[in-house]
Amino acid sequence: MKSTLVVVFWALSLTGIAASMRLSSAQADRAAPPNAAIEIPVEYRDWRLISVAHEEGDLNDLRAVLGNDLVMQAYREDIRPFPDGAIIARLAWRHVASEENNAVFGRAQSFVAGAPTNVQFMVKDEAKFASTGGWGFAQVTDGKPVDAAGLATCYACHLPVKERDFVFTHYAP
Amino acid sequence: MKSTLVVVFWALSLTGIAASMRLSSAQADRAAPPNAAIEIPVEYRDWRLISVAHEEGDLNDLRAVLGNDLVMQAYREDIRPFPDGAIIARLAWRHVASEENNAVFGRAQSFVAGAPTNVQFMVKDEAKFASTGGWGFAQVTDGKPVDAAGLATCYACHLPVKERDFVFTHYAP
Repeated sequence: MKSTLVVVFWALSLTGIAASMRLSSAQADRAAPPNAAIEIPVEYRDWRLISVAHEEGDLNDLRAVLGNDLVMQAYREDIRPFPDGAIIARLAWRHVASEENNAVFGRAQSFVAGAPTNVQFMVKDEAKFASTGGWGFAQVTDGKPVDAAGLATCYACHLPVKERDFVFTHYAP
Repeated sequence: MKSTLVVVFWALSLTGIAASMRLSSAQADRAAPPNAAIEIPVEYRDWRLISVAHEEGDLNDLRAVLGNDLVMQAYREDIRPFPDGAIIARLAWRHVASEENNAVFGRAQSFVAGAPTNVQFMVKDEAKFASTGGWGFAQVTDGKPVDAAGLATCYACHLPVKERDFVFTHYAP
């Protein structure tokens, strides 16, 4: 079975059309991640903010972590594990110096979001993704869905925070 | 007239109560900012994401810029100037190294949102704030509203981007 992308990812309407896209992390011959389609609502860019982050090094990005309503409720009411249907979206953009802002501040200190790099998703479905902590993982890089081989390390990286239901990000008040 | 805060800022419900608070940037004896009350809906934390940023130096923070519905529509439909009622919220948190994330990455590169520092608002009302480009400015630092003296420099800093209706932040796709 090949990876499929039923709805082209970056066709997402900025005004938030309520359609959904279907990201398949298929390739049944691989052990991880599980061979299960992951559906991501295209309006994820309108979800609410959990927190922000910054990665130096090769990643060199600024990040926003957004959650659907089930995720936000879980954070704010301290509900763990996250319920089925919870979806977390981690957006990232190049960490770019802002000459415009620096001119105003009078020194080089300001960085803003440049070109988008990739978007990662965690989708909670305890039954479907039982072998990876109840979470399905998906990623879109440069507008293209990453296949199962590219997602094989997701779960292992999240294992150290198993006690927080495999989610790194803390809510930023 | 003294600065007043009718609803305590950090009493904001995380689940998004539709009440509103009233931040007064009063002190009529000062030239700037204009003596006009600024009302900020307490549910601003649930607004949608415009972009993220990072300031080094003394600020040393990570930022998220959120907008109410009028702001998001203006960004996405390229409407300028922003219409009356548009409100932009800039949240900031300490830029803090994440030892937990670094352990997973295998090197020191990861920074996350630490303690919140301050929240700044721009409120569009062409008539009320005619002397400052149609924008009223407000800020809450450590849970307390900043008075007019503390806001006196806002407009001057935003003047360099007058052609973008005084707004620095670009939409992050």
